Amino acid sequence: MAEPLVLTLSCADRPGITARVTSFLFAGGGNILEAQQFNDRSSKAFFMRVEFDPGNWERDHLCDQFVGLANEFEMGWKLAQCDRPKRVLIMVSKFDHCLADLLYRWRIGELAMEPVAIISNHPRESIEHAHLGGIPFHQLPVTPETRPEQEAEVRKLADRYDAELVILARYMQILSDRQAEHFAGRCINIHHSFLPGFKGAKPYHQAYERGVKMIGASAHYVTADLDEGPIIHQAAEPVTHADSPDQLVRKGRNIESRVLAEAVRLHLEERVLLNGHRTVVFGN
Amino acid sequence: MAEPLVLTLSCADRPGITARVTSFLFAGGGNILEAQQFNDRSSKAFFMRVEFDPGNWERDHLCDQFVGLANEFEMGWKLAQCDRPKRVLIMVSKFDHCLADLLYRWRIGELAMEPVAIISNHPRESIEHAHLGGIPFHQLPVTPETRPEQEAEVRKLADRYDAELVILARYMQILSDRQAEHFAGRCINIHHSFLPGFKGAKPYHQAYERGVKMIGASAHYVTADLDEGPIIHQAAEPVTHADSPDQLVRKGRNIESRVLAEAVRLHLEERVLLNGHRTVVFGN
Amino acid sequence: MAEPLVLTLSCADRPGITARVTSFLFAGGGNILEAQQFNDRSSKAFFMRVEFDPGNWERDHLCDQFVGLANEFEMGWKLAQCDRPKRVLIMVSKFDHCLADLLYRWRIGELAMEPVAIISNHPRESIEHAHLGGIPFHQLPVTPETRPEQEAEVRKLADRYDAELVILARYMQILSDRQAEHFAGRCINIHHSFLPGFKGAKPYHQAYERGVKMIGASAHYVTADLDEGPIIHQAAEPVTHADSPDQLVRKGRNIESRVLAEAVRLHLEERVLLNGHRTVVFGN
Amino acid sequence: MAEPLVLTLSCADRPGITARVTSFLFAGGGNILEAQQFNDRSSKAFFMRVEFDPGNWERDHLCDQFVGLANEFEMGWKLAQCDRPKRVLIMVSKFDHCLADLLYRWRIGELAMEPVAIISNHPRESIEHAHLGGIPFHQLPVTPETRPEQEAEVRKLADRYDAELVILARYMQILSDRQAEHFAGRCINIHHSFLPGFKGAKPYHQAYERGVKMIGASAHYVTADLDEGPIIHQAAEPVTHADSPDQLVRKGRNIESRVLAEAVRLHLEERVLLNGHRTVVFGN
Repeated sequence: MAEPLVLTLSCADRPGITARVTSFLFAGGGNILEAQQFNDRSSKAFFMRVEFDPGNWERDHLCDQFVGLANEFEMGWKLAQCDRPKRVLIMVSKFDHCLADLLYRWRIGELAMEPVAIISNHPRESIEHAHLGGIPFHQLPVTPETRPEQEAEVRKLADRYDAELVILARYMQILSDRQAEHFAGRCINIHHSFLPGFKGAKPYHQAYERGVKMIGASAHYVTADLDEGPIIHQAAEPVTHADSPDQLVRKGRNIESRVLAEAVRLHLEERVLLNGHRTVVFGN
Repeated sequence: MAEPLVLTLSCADRPGITARVTSFLFAGGGNILEAQQFNDRSSKAFFMRVEFDPGNWERDHLCDQFVGLANEFEMGWKLAQCDRPKRVLIMVSKFDHCLADLLYRWRIGELAMEPVAIISNHPRESIEHAHLGGIPFHQLPVTPETRPEQEAEVRKLADRYDAELVILARYMQILSDRQAEHFAGRCINIHHSFLPGFKGAKPYHQAYERGVKMIGASAHYVTADLDEGPIIHQAAEPVTHADSPDQLVRKGRNIESRVLAEAVRLHLEERVLLNGHRTVVFGN
Repeated sequence: MAEPLVLTLSCADRPGITARVTSFLFAGGGNILEAQQFNDRSSKAFFMRVEFDPGNWERDHLCDQFVGLANEFEMGWKLAQCDRPKRVLIMVSKFDHCLADLLYRWRIGELAMEPVAIISNHPRESIEHAHLGGIPFHQLPVTPETRPEQEAEVRKLADRYDAELVILARYMQILSDRQAEHFAGRCINIHHSFLPGFKGAKPYHQAYERGVKMIGASAHYVTADLDEGPIIHQAAEPVTHADSPDQLVRKGRNIESRVLAEAVRLHLEERVLLNGHRTVVFGN
Repeated sequence: MAEPLVLTLSCADRPGITARVTSFLFAGGGNILEAQQFNDRSSKAFFMRVEFDPGNWERDHLCDQFVGLANEFEMGWKLAQCDRPKRVLIMVSKFDHCLADLLYRWRIGELAMEPVAIISNHPRESIEHAHLGGIPFHQLPVTPETRPEQEAEVRKLADRYDAELVILARYMQILSDRQAEHFAGRCINIHHSFLPGFKGAKPYHQAYERGVKMIGASAHYVTADLDEGPIIHQAAEPVTHADSPDQLVRKGRNIESRVLAEAVRLHLEERVLLNGHRTVVFGN
């Protein structure tokens, strides 16, 4: 079997798209391994993800051939190699549980990524518990005054490392509108609450004060509108009156790590498509 | 074994409360069946629930005897019969799934309550699917203009039926501040979202628009501050992009029924104590 | 829009099936509303479910036309009307919580079924809490000795009522091999444990004895091999040491009702395909 | 505040135990921080856990004083320092996700333990992904023939390191009856299935073959009876037909790590009491 490819696309819904796309792949000798589609009846939009063995087709040739069909349906589309690790830039602050979790999953081959660099606003020594190995580390401190320069530096590093995805692994800094736009659709944040509840800072303390009986975490694409970006994945777990804020923080770490890792995996495997300010997630 | 009693109390925390209370019960010939306590380290408050076999002690005598101890510690306290069904008034609007669920659980003996009456702002015929049996039904239509009179009528009925608990089983009407205060601590509402997200009306449509990946429901005591009352119980379940608002409503019904029934059970069994605007829930 | 249809099929996997099937539907003027497929890499089998607006096509004509394609790929297939209520026979014993739950969901339009009759081995009076309305009720008592005759009677009733699905809603009787075979693929049972743990009788007491920290329920197609049929849906919830067997039974009722209703819904909407002794479930 | 202590005890249930124990603590100047009890109505046994500030009392003196009361009620009991890290020996095989997770939690202060050594039947190089730091590592290869000697070696190391708890973090070797007895009550295993389903080897492959819709993991004390030891904690998550055995393994890793870490935490905090072949877990 050749290296499998994954085609993702979206366009206005109309009869025949699936037939045309799958016939195109079949005609070229492709063999579907996994296919999912979503016909959004409210927005009349169509979304598709097809993982396939391209047979004798080269990826570039296939792309050239597909352009006609894509134009006819005015598709947004992408043809990616399934298993090629994406180049990932991870940003972190003092809490390193999400970072440690992502790196462990990367090391055992669970996440098809290549961590090209880690950026923190704190010094390397503050990452006490995660094992960075040889991954380049950059400290870029930030204050309200230096934010524009610091963010320019981040963009420069992202360019230099040719980063395809930026992960805010409890980075704890709000990105400027400009920065959020720059990385639109390729920057995932973990918010340590069950959005849309408890936006902003110290959500576990907010949750404690409110006396909720469940806490959660939300992974979403970053947009200029803080904590309002398209949600990729969420999870929640029960808590009780006996949980102090510290306990909530402890229980929350589990959820955050898990939710972020799952969102990153879904993104890396091209399973997340944008549908306005929402997402279509072709899970598995 | 005599009919078991349940003692619930709260007071400022200080050394010796548990010793004093349990020694008191033991001296009177009581035998503890289940006991739980919570020392709230942040508010320095103490909460306790003891279910016990009173032995030869009469409940009234026991109450008289306990007053001294209660006063010494400035306790809020209550001595209730465990299994005596509480008199419950259920208010409902057009959706009757929570009502049907509560009545079924009552009929099979799962909830120690006696539904003394059902009040709806709609006519009896609008309760199409729940089996009311011989429970008295009162239609009390309401408009913004007639709310004061209608609410007075509700209070009158609650008095006439000697209702100990009012359940808003998807009643879909906002209570006035006055009404909320009148029933403070003895009125449970089911909010069809995972508070504090999506307050107010049409939360499933809000959830759909926001593109969340989980929906939930919250049962809470009613306070003047809409959807801000002390939360008793919550639950949540995963949803996907493929869930239309109608599907969310369908999935939500399951969660609402379950969450409300659990909150009502906890209340009926004297397992919920108020801790400011939060609750202490001595679950089982 | 014409009444939507749903096409389900399975066959050996090979390139081009999706293209051929969707092109066929497109050519006939059909418009896909929802489509899911599963390429089982271990068994090399292919499964598909397509919900579509047939446009001007008549269902019968469409069937005739599809035969050629179906034969070419040696498909097992079915073309069903999406919204036509299926004729359902419900069997029950003394516990009626699953029955009550199914009937409520039916009454509010959540389940596309028509309950044609209820069979119990106990008299009608033993169904105390579920509201049967006008649904025909048949008491068919059974003992080990009379099982063959009783089961023949069940088959006769199923024929007479033209039942398309038999639901064992806590029927608590083991079917003979013959009966299980007779209703293969159209009889759903709820087992009140998390299969494959605790097969057989009194699973909650088994769970209590074993000291598990979660209990669950499993809905499955009935086969001759007791509690070994293809699983359609499962759920589980946490329990504690403080849960007596009675409490487990109470908590279990919630899970059972929910799991059975979901399995029935999935079946009624043609979302469950058999894959050997496992199922493919095209959920939503 | 003095260093808090935790008193755990169990005995036959009879009136007055709570009163006597809490009065004893109060008389000595102790102040209860958290207290839980369980009156097992089926076995007529009583279990209690009290976390308290001992005031001016020394732990040793308190022990001496408590002996009389303990003897009177024929208690099994223990008086431990809450925050003293327990000396823990971790055994592991080739999969290191549970090990990595435990060590991370230890490093950030989530688990009150001190990993005194790691034992593997494989060489140190096989632990590729977990960061061992300076923790002593011992390779003790084992075959059916050398098991007695290897297990003696393990006991010797446990003695030498004065280990209070042995964690089988996916050790994948069955202990002999003798070894299981030796470490009874102080050896926790993670079984990668939802016991009692899928005992023995390759549970995820068993789960795949059976076509279950949820998978889980169970942490339990080790006993001679394989996978039948008292369960401490369990969790489960939904899976689908599309999950290959490899996917189940991946999803399972999350559950295993989380369940084992929670069981270890509960044990370290003296929250788990044995109740025959079941456990009483005073969670928080």
